[in-house]
Amino acid sequence: MGITSLLGSGVYTAAYPLHDGDINEESAEPNDRKLLYEEWANYSVFYKYQPIGLVRKYFGEKIGLYFAWLGLYTQMLIPASLVGVIVFLYGCATVDDNIPSMEICHPRNNITMCPLCDRVCSYWKLSTACGTARASHLFDNPATVFFSIFMALWAAMFMEHWKRRQMRLNYEWDLTGFEDEEVSDSQIKNNRLPAYMTNIVMMLLMIGVTFAIVFGVILYRISTKAALHMSSNPTTRNNVQLTVKTTAAIINLVVILILDEVYGAVARWLTVLEVPKTDKSFEERLIFKTFILKFFNAFTPIIYIAFFRGRLVGRPGSYLYVFESYRMEECAHGGCLMELCIQLSITMLGKQLIQNNLFEIGVPKLKKLIRYIRSKQGAFQEEERQKKLQRYETDHFLEPFAGLTPEYMEMMIQFGFVTLFVASFPLAPLFALLNNIIEIRLDAKKFVTELRRPVAARAKDIGIWYNILKGVAKVAVIINAFVISFTSDFIPRMVYQYMYSPDGTMHGFVNHTLSYFNVSHFQDGKETMDPLHLGYRVEICRYKDYREPPWSDTPYEISKEFWTVLAVRLAFVIVFQNVVMLMSDIVDWLIPDIPKDISLQIHKEKILLVDLFMKEEQGKIHILESRPSTGGKENCSRSNNNNSTVAHPRSGLHTNSTKSF
Amino acid sequence: MGITSLLGSGVYTAAYPLHDGDINEESAEPNDRKLLYEEWANYSVFYKYQPIGLVRKYFGEKIGLYFAWLGLYTQMLIPASLVGVIVFLYGCATVDDNIPSMEICHPRNNITMCPLCDRVCSYWKLSTACGTARASHLFDNPATVFFSIFMALWAAMFMEHWKRRQMRLNYEWDLTGFEDEEVSDSQIKNNRLPAYMTNIVMMLLMIGVTFAIVFGVILYRISTKAALHMSSNPTTRNNVQLTVKTTAAIINLVVILILDEVYGAVARWLTVLEVPKTDKSFEERLIFKTFILKFFNAFTPIIYIAFFRGRLVGRPGSYLYVFESYRMEECAHGGCLMELCIQLSITMLGKQLIQNNLFEIGVPKLKKLIRYIRSKQGAFQEEERQKKLQRYETDHFLEPFAGLTPEYMEMMIQFGFVTLFVASFPLAPLFALLNNIIEIRLDAKKFVTELRRPVAARAKDIGIWYNILKGVAKVAVIINAFVISFTSDFIPRMVYQYMYSPDGTMHGFVNHTLSYFNVSHFQDGKETMDPLHLGYRVEICRYKDYREPPWSDTPYEISKEFWTVLAVRLAFVIVFQNVVMLMSDIVDWLIPDIPKDISLQIHKEKILLVDLFMKEEQGKIHILESRPSTGGKENCSRSNNNNSTVAHPRSGLHTNSTKSF
Repeated sequence: MGITSLLGSGVYTAAYPLHDGDINEESAEPNDRKLLYEEWANYSVFYKYQPIGLVRKYFGEKIGLYFAWLGLYTQMLIPASLVGVIVFLYGCATVDDNIPSMEICHPRNNITMCPLCDRVCSYWKLSTACGTARASHLFDNPATVFFSIFMALWAAMFMEHWKRRQMRLNYEWDLTGFEDEEVSDSQIKNNRLPAYMTNIVMMLLMIGVTFAIVFGVILYRISTKAALHMSSNPTTRNNVQLTVKTTAAIINLVVILILDEVYGAVARWLTVLEVPKTDKSFEERLIFKTFILKFFNAFTPIIYIAFFRGRLVGRPGSYLYVFESYRMEECAHGGCLMELCIQLSITMLGKQLIQNNLFEIGVPKLKKLIRYIRSKQGAFQEEERQKKLQRYETDHFLEPFAGLTPEYMEMMIQFGFVTLFVASFPLAPLFALLNNIIEIRLDAKKFVTELRRPVAARAKDIGIWYNILKGVAKVAVIINAFVISFTSDFIPRMVYQYMYSPDGTMHGFVNHTLSYFNVSHFQDGKETMDPLHLGYRVEICRYKDYREPPWSDTPYEISKEFWTVLAVRLAFVIVFQNVVMLMSDIVDWLIPDIPKDISLQIHKEKILLVDLFMKEEQGKIHILESRPSTGGKENCSRSNNNNSTVAHPRSGLHTNSTKSF
Repeated sequence: MGITSLLGSGVYTAAYPLHDGDINEESAEPNDRKLLYEEWANYSVFYKYQPIGLVRKYFGEKIGLYFAWLGLYTQMLIPASLVGVIVFLYGCATVDDNIPSMEICHPRNNITMCPLCDRVCSYWKLSTACGTARASHLFDNPATVFFSIFMALWAAMFMEHWKRRQMRLNYEWDLTGFEDEEVSDSQIKNNRLPAYMTNIVMMLLMIGVTFAIVFGVILYRISTKAALHMSSNPTTRNNVQLTVKTTAAIINLVVILILDEVYGAVARWLTVLEVPKTDKSFEERLIFKTFILKFFNAFTPIIYIAFFRGRLVGRPGSYLYVFESYRMEECAHGGCLMELCIQLSITMLGKQLIQNNLFEIGVPKLKKLIRYIRSKQGAFQEEERQKKLQRYETDHFLEPFAGLTPEYMEMMIQFGFVTLFVASFPLAPLFALLNNIIEIRLDAKKFVTELRRPVAARAKDIGIWYNILKGVAKVAVIINAFVISFTSDFIPRMVYQYMYSPDGTMHGFVNHTLSYFNVSHFQDGKETMDPLHLGYRVEICRYKDYREPPWSDTPYEISKEFWTVLAVRLAFVIVFQNVVMLMSDIVDWLIPDIPKDISLQIHKEKILLVDLFMKEEQGKIHILESRPSTGGKENCSRSNNNNSTVAHPRSGLHTNSTKSF
């Protein structure tokens, strides 16, 4: 309390533990900091295990656990990336055997498609979508179904392995008996309901802002596309798709990066409003809120592309319009999976490169520079200064430690990218792995060289982060189920092959997924201005949907095929979700939480301890009988009157005492 | 080890702790057994809380926990039964407003239905199904959807409350530091694979036997129905349905009761084969296997009725036949929900009445009688004998204690009935409640008067039973989702009302669910022998299915409506399952595992303890300084050299010592 109030009243400007010594100095005695710098905070040792024991010794258990967790996560990403790369390569290898894309690309294919926008767009040949169709196959093949099941089990395995690793570290670091309980006696219960209400309203508002921005980007895309289509410059018109997609993705990324900072501040403000009773409770509430906001921020655009885009377009002759003039956007032929994949890679790589590397390396360097300039000693030579200054002075130039929350948060969002949409992006684990190999050493460098030494804190586990991981893994199962069944064409292909195909092959699938439209049914003012674009008069054009043809009794009604495919899609979601959940539960159940050797070791120590207590008791009785010394006796019997429970000793305390013998 | 080997070699016939005294004796000093008999093992105190403290004192923690659990479960059943009864009453009250059953019962309704069996059955009027349609409404109305969501949350609440109660009992019974760890050092790992294989094969075989028996009962039902239909006696023919259903349900019940015993033995044999390393592991494996087998045994016939019956019948003109002559059975009009309900109530009530009451009361009485006769002292007068005999002799006449497994097992199966199919049987909680009110006192009576006093065993929790409860609660969510969407007519009604109804009401629903069949399309030899049964020539008959009419392009094909309804059904399952799982997680998260007052209390005790340790240390230093006595000093410092961890004390040991001050 003393130092805190002195800091608060400005008597001291800062209080921090000192670093062990200098890193670069060629001093005679090697110190822990130097050792860490050489053996840990160094890119050249990236393939080695981290010296977690030393990290814990120097920075405390809490930071040690973070690096242990990050290490295990990175290690577990290796098999995931391997399988992901194999799945991707499988897609590449089978792209030429894929009948639907072969049919689209076939030169004799002359299916005329309906215009993609009103008036300015014209009819087009399906064969021009050949490239997209082939590319889609890379991410939309049966192997991705296998991969998303694999990744769900991988997530379960990861959680289990972490539990075991944590248990082992707890044992090795003598934490088995430690519990960081914080109980507040204060009963401030009044005036908290308004705070809760503000919280909920604000959280919903923030999520609403995210939605609004996503909607704004959609509007931007639609309107820009329409504007560019009308451009007289043919080059512009040809590059419409690319221009719009790229700029929209960049806008999305920039918005995500900005909102991430805003949401961090909002979450902190909201948590302060709530007046949590303890520091731990404050931290947990803050983390929870920040996570929810950042999660929505990162994943809303992706969820829109995966599940809503291209589904709310209406049909030719009766399109859906936003603000009565903009037609809702469609996906390129081959489903939205390709676009999802592009968006995912841009967001993930962009976030990692900009947020992690630029912000994490650049900003601390900048801050250090500013602090250096401000301290009026810029005139001194760097080396000279270092020699002259005391340890506490050198450390004062370093950035203060701001907690592990940003580091963990970044990893949680990354874990989301790795698990949530893995069905559509099998390379995500590989990107994550590459990022994390750098991340570990980057964080290490930051902790060893850029930050003031943090106050060592004890911790038994990674706390609320474990629950967040578990939550993400749970959500991942259902999202992957929906991606496979709704975003990819996996189910329509299956349904066609087993229910509609005349010869049991995929031949004719493309034709089956396209409905017919009679161009005379276009609304007035919506028909294309350039009907002879393809060189002939079009009477029937095709569009991707399951609807009745113009010549049926109920033209353009949703067809039986649509409902069949929908039913199979939903059935797949149920089967996938429950099978994967069951398998995860089995993994959870098969892998014991405490490693066998650790539990044996703990058990043996307990037996040793009981023996010791027994001997001690006997020895005491012996001494008491032989030489009665009142003062000492009373004291001993008081401190040992828990002998009735000796047969069932508790680990913590005793483990420590046993070890010290 | 000593007494066990003496028992094994037959030197002693039995070893058991003695009861406190006689119950009926008008002795001067009241003993605990008598107190328990009066205040606990007595039907007249059924409305009171159990004296759990006394139960624990007399029988030990393990049995105390069982009764505490049973008490909480019974208590939690009260709100569940109340809501269940209200839901049932809602069904009763709205039965006259139910448009579909009104339409069926309407005198002007003259829909002609297709025959229910080949040749001997004839066409029938839908209005004759009026009674069943009205009865179905009792269990198939929107309130049951609400009720199954309610019961899923109820199950989550129950688990949470039990965790809290257990924590409280742990604190009150000084078990916070106790851990019943059993670690075996023996590394017998060879020769276990064959045992595991035998296990899996046998388990599958046993489950196969269950399936075979269920199938046998189906065959019995089909063939008996066919035989009785051909009977010349008109009374027999009229009572066909009732006779067949009742006998089949009784056969099912008897088979379940017999197989329950067989499976118990099989599970034990299989577990012995596995050679588990510790007693605890043996018990857990045995319980797990027994539960799986008994669960399948109890629920397979019910699952068949709920999800398969009436779904594999084919259609008129192309029925599905078993062994080429027996047509698969259909459900009565109004879905299989009614039959499911009948089967559920018969199985549940039958199991409870016969297994619990008859077996639990009758068999021990019988055994006691046999032992009494065998002991050659039957000539003595009962009272005289009691007076003459020593305590250990009287107790020897009692049944030995055989573990809590059967008691728990029975409750788990009951919990299954209460949660798994609650959507179709809202009165299940009420039946369970009535049974349990008796069960508590019955078990109490058994423990106090019929059994030898069990060896008191310590336990911190109810062990594997908690996991089983959790598993049942999980399975319940998905089964209820399927019952609502597939067994009940809830979804077809919704789909009709919002998609097909011309005026947005339920009028016309019955007609919509019936397909048309042209009787000239019956296969040869399958048409009815009595075509003029209704008094007129039938050309088109109706059957319950969504198929194209004979006059469509694709007659008798599955129609678009079928796929629409199926898609909505599956969507409902997904939404229901995920919403309920989310809500259960929220309940789990909102209710803290440790009651507030207990955690405060534990915290306070810890602070007290730290103070005490500090004072003691100071006192010791004082003593050592003032009067150096080598022997005592050395001893004290050794027994207190864990002072380095005093700042982080662990509950167990210290809680005990604090309390004894």
